[in-house]
Amino acid sequence: MALLETSKYSQGSVLGSVNPDLASERQTASFSVEKLTALLDGGTEQTRIRRAVVEAIESDPVFSRENQYFQTQNERYEAAVKKAVHLQKKMHEMGWTENGPEYKYIYRALSGDVAFLLHRVFMRSISVLGSDKQIAKWIPLATQHKLIGSYAQTELGHGTYLQGLETTAVFDTATQEFVLNTPKISAMKWWPGDMGRSATHTVVFAQLYIHGKCYGIHPFIVQIRSLQDHSLCPGITAGDIGPKMNFEHIDNGYLLLKNVRIPRENMLSKFCEVRPDGTYVRQGSQKINYFTMTTVRISLISDEVLTPLMKACTIAIRYSAVRRQSKLKPGEQEAKILDYQTQQEKLLPQLAAAYAFHFINDYLQELFNRGYREIQRKNFDMLPELHALSSGFKAVITQHCTAGVEICLRACGGHGYSLLSGLPSLYTKIIASCIYEGENTILLLQTARFLIKCFMAANAGQPVPPSVTYLAAVKHGKCPAKNKLDFLSPDIYTEAYQHVAVRLTSSTAAKLQDLIQSGVKKHDAWNQCTVQLVQAAKAHCHYIAVKNFAETVEKLETKAGIQKIMKHLCDLFALHGIFSNTGAFLHDGYISAAQMDMVTASYLDLLAVIRKDAVPLVDAFDFTDKSLNSALGSYDGQVYQRLYDWAQKSPTNQMSPAYERYLKPLLHNTLSKL
Amino acid sequence: MALLETSKYSQGSVLGSVNPDLASERQTASFSVEKLTALLDGGTEQTRIRRAVVEAIESDPVFSRENQYFQTQNERYEAAVKKAVHLQKKMHEMGWTENGPEYKYIYRALSGDVAFLLHRVFMRSISVLGSDKQIAKWIPLATQHKLIGSYAQTELGHGTYLQGLETTAVFDTATQEFVLNTPKISAMKWWPGDMGRSATHTVVFAQLYIHGKCYGIHPFIVQIRSLQDHSLCPGITAGDIGPKMNFEHIDNGYLLLKNVRIPRENMLSKFCEVRPDGTYVRQGSQKINYFTMTTVRISLISDEVLTPLMKACTIAIRYSAVRRQSKLKPGEQEAKILDYQTQQEKLLPQLAAAYAFHFINDYLQELFNRGYREIQRKNFDMLPELHALSSGFKAVITQHCTAGVEICLRACGGHGYSLLSGLPSLYTKIIASCIYEGENTILLLQTARFLIKCFMAANAGQPVPPSVTYLAAVKHGKCPAKNKLDFLSPDIYTEAYQHVAVRLTSSTAAKLQDLIQSGVKKHDAWNQCTVQLVQAAKAHCHYIAVKNFAETVEKLETKAGIQKIMKHLCDLFALHGIFSNTGAFLHDGYISAAQMDMVTASYLDLLAVIRKDAVPLVDAFDFTDKSLNSALGSYDGQVYQRLYDWAQKSPTNQMSPAYERYLKPLLHNTLSKL
Repeated sequence: MALLETSKYSQGSVLGSVNPDLASERQTASFSVEKLTALLDGGTEQTRIRRAVVEAIESDPVFSRENQYFQTQNERYEAAVKKAVHLQKKMHEMGWTENGPEYKYIYRALSGDVAFLLHRVFMRSISVLGSDKQIAKWIPLATQHKLIGSYAQTELGHGTYLQGLETTAVFDTATQEFVLNTPKISAMKWWPGDMGRSATHTVVFAQLYIHGKCYGIHPFIVQIRSLQDHSLCPGITAGDIGPKMNFEHIDNGYLLLKNVRIPRENMLSKFCEVRPDGTYVRQGSQKINYFTMTTVRISLISDEVLTPLMKACTIAIRYSAVRRQSKLKPGEQEAKILDYQTQQEKLLPQLAAAYAFHFINDYLQELFNRGYREIQRKNFDMLPELHALSSGFKAVITQHCTAGVEICLRACGGHGYSLLSGLPSLYTKIIASCIYEGENTILLLQTARFLIKCFMAANAGQPVPPSVTYLAAVKHGKCPAKNKLDFLSPDIYTEAYQHVAVRLTSSTAAKLQDLIQSGVKKHDAWNQCTVQLVQAAKAHCHYIAVKNFAETVEKLETKAGIQKIMKHLCDLFALHGIFSNTGAFLHDGYISAAQMDMVTASYLDLLAVIRKDAVPLVDAFDFTDKSLNSALGSYDGQVYQRLYDWAQKSPTNQMSPAYERYLKPLLHNTLSKL
Repeated sequence: MALLETSKYSQGSVLGSVNPDLASERQTASFSVEKLTALLDGGTEQTRIRRAVVEAIESDPVFSRENQYFQTQNERYEAAVKKAVHLQKKMHEMGWTENGPEYKYIYRALSGDVAFLLHRVFMRSISVLGSDKQIAKWIPLATQHKLIGSYAQTELGHGTYLQGLETTAVFDTATQEFVLNTPKISAMKWWPGDMGRSATHTVVFAQLYIHGKCYGIHPFIVQIRSLQDHSLCPGITAGDIGPKMNFEHIDNGYLLLKNVRIPRENMLSKFCEVRPDGTYVRQGSQKINYFTMTTVRISLISDEVLTPLMKACTIAIRYSAVRRQSKLKPGEQEAKILDYQTQQEKLLPQLAAAYAFHFINDYLQELFNRGYREIQRKNFDMLPELHALSSGFKAVITQHCTAGVEICLRACGGHGYSLLSGLPSLYTKIIASCIYEGENTILLLQTARFLIKCFMAANAGQPVPPSVTYLAAVKHGKCPAKNKLDFLSPDIYTEAYQHVAVRLTSSTAAKLQDLIQSGVKKHDAWNQCTVQLVQAAKAHCHYIAVKNFAETVEKLETKAGIQKIMKHLCDLFALHGIFSNTGAFLHDGYISAAQMDMVTASYLDLLAVIRKDAVPLVDAFDFTDKSLNSALGSYDGQVYQRLYDWAQKSPTNQMSPAYERYLKPLLHNTLSKL
């Protein structure tokens, strides 16, 4: 790796030898890092497989990301396509298959820096929405990459509200074709990945019209580029939507359709079919399709959201153990910035959140697997709950992790602002997760709608799903904590979270009812409550996350020190949430002012405790230097040498391109005077 | 402007004609937009001058920023140098001078996209720190651009803590020279703007050594590049530090010094001089220098922090009036997203904050002008207060505005994530303001130190500066509000903010004292209180900002509807602060739970009121389309057409660069099969 080359200036590189300030952090770990890694992976065998995948990917120069921060959008795109093509070869070489145990580690090992991700969505749509005949035709072609697929749903003027899509597909009985159009500029497809420059085919979502009647949104397979020379097909205008905050490697595209004709067979017809005479036939239950969309929100959490936060924590915490600035004690050496309480208060709650969300992700995965089994048995009872949980947690986790990455970036001062720290690209990428697969506010309102409904049902004595049974048991007690140590009891803080979630749900339900009873129309009343409904949905998810973390800790084996440190992190996660939202807990006096001072004291105490294990706790995430791609976060902590070596490779380190034309004329006739 | 060209697809461009959804927002303005603009500018004459500068700059194609989102770091840098050189010509042409009334509008009109900003800092350092002789020698050369200056203070390993800088300047009596070295990699100068590729000279801050004794940090003028051919001078290694999150147009640089010799006369010697025999002489008071550094923090607020927030609000609010998504009422057209309470709750508090901070900036400018007059009369009494205010407000305003820009970005959904929205570049630039000119946490702790000191003094009956006299008057009353309308009374909410600021300062002072009395060493005790000290400093600034806004509103003329709408914004700013920090106000029961419900009700009511004037309120910021450089924020609201037209100009809209090498081989032998 070129980064490791000895630079002339360093007079014998120190890279590779661990910075003593970082080494000392590892000597005092209170737990076994290797065992914690295995816990996170789900077992030592999983760790072994993951490491083997990482090793295979990272030792292959085609997959290198070292130059990424220096590349243009065009270069990033080309590299991503190259990697996607090479990956096929690599998988074959390594004997990895889509159903094998290695598969889930590949994307993580590539840090998502690869093209044709939408090709997989294209395939999934066909598998889920297509008839057996359609699956038999298209899936083998896609699997062998004999076409490149995309997924064209979002339009310039339409995202969240699918019913509002304006693209039309009119059935022409005479020719047995659908005629597709994007009749207005706002109907133009906009954002689909892999579509700007690569895709040959896409699944277009359009309003189906038969004999002048609209049947709503349906999916159609449309070829957009020639398989011969990649030129655009007749009636197609398509291209790249230009620069974004990140995702330079993806050719997000636009697509205009002008009287594009496709055969009747290209409407995906597992659930709805148009017969040759124009008869529209609905068949089967779409609920499983609905379930699939819901699972996407869960599936993105791990790779797109948790991994970036864990990387950001690794970078910022290692850097904070190495960076020395100002003096804590007069006369002493400058202090590690990790020793400042304010720095701990920035970083350690993010670390605790990374663990909390890792465990809630396990919980959700497990729940969704169960849901899937039920649905296969034609039992759809769990669907509303799964939808509410996936919506709420997608929103809460993406929001929390985005904020966490930003905190990590800012906690590294100026160096965090350099792309070479790795932090800016983590931030600019993770922030998109707050928007895609459902805008967060809208998702939280869907969770809130479920909560209100269940709250009403529970109070009417009707049964409600397990995750919301607590809404029935409104208690008006007070928090029983007597001293600050009581707030290290999971029962105490879990109960407090539950109390707040119930209070926010019930008070908003009451407001909603009051408004409606006072004559406000239902939809207006709902709109007037949405700010508070969002709060209730967040409180619900926060409660479940805390409860789940506490339950997870309880189940951990007590040896190797892991349970103890996880308990500290669980406490920190819970108390940080209270400390950052004191009003929610103080409002009705459930926690008193005196108790809140105890929370604060316990919370600040915990920072100093966890600080001791901070570096081992990020080491346990087990990121390689190449996967972090950060001058600040490397395992050896040789921050300054890495920054300097790397910066020298920047394309901006050539003679000033402005010299001959601008600087020379400005300066030149002044030599004699200086 | 190419952006305005009619595209083929649009079949008669709609650009220029105002989107009816936006036009309707302007018809119902409750106040005169033009008068509000004049108020913000400080008078109609100022508005006229500003507009003339903007017109002159924007009509000159050299200053165009239209391609900015498509350019590489090298291209951005070259364009910025070109603009800097051209600006000299332009100023001459227009008759603008550095002391003229136009000057302050130039940088804003350029959106800061210009090189040689550090050249000005170079000049200011010499003016402030140099002897008369040094000023006479260097300032004319710099003014005429016969050299290009920079300012080399920060090192790879040292930022905030100046005493920790490692660069050395050893006086050699034999040759009457200083010998400069960066003895370790962490001593390397890192970050100075204009230094990576442009500067010929720089002011280097180094530890002065004479006869083996260290005299601390001093400034030295060092030539780093040849005036002949721009090659690096002997002993100099310098270059560009590579890509950052933004600031691609600036060549932030690194600098290594190896036995670089400069004449004795190059140490800036207004305050300290080294005589030929090595005698070190201190002269005069450095307090004015200290004052100068303090004013820099205030001077950046307007252009670097408020303008970006105002631009972000303009973009997001205009877009929200045009974007329609989902239905508020069944059966109706899709609703403007600005009509959703959650969208209002995201954007309108940012708008209110922009106004609040504009007015506090006026207040601080006025205070600093007064301070400057006092200091010229050798009265330094105001210095500690000015330092505390500038530190605190720099931190609070940069933090708040950075968060505000991010909220605006996220409130625009996917389109906010496109660089063409203008929002990502506003965000990635403003976030740096949280770090430069003093890292925010450290600044807040400086404000807190002042607060604690003044609190102690006030309680001991000693006089304290005007901004903190309120700390002496600890009242233990309760908020007297009886209904939600009472919370629209500035007395009520200002008092509440004051109460919280006093409580947080006094409780932290008490904790500090308790710790020390219990035997904890002073510096440890301080560190253990820093999280709470930061809260106290923020509360102090928030209180002053609310009070100042309320006082400003009171002084406004009552006609033209301006006072009324400003009063609404002031109320919103104040109530949003309470609503977002309920715990601080509930903690000791100053505001009761019932009263907090009134705050919430009033706050949510205000959103609906201000929403009606939201577009006129951003129109009053008077940004041209070119200065916003945003497809979402243009005055005409033709969002989709602009996005489409602009995206087509992206360099990514050419044939896929990956086609021949990667896509074609993948696809090619499959033609017959599809």
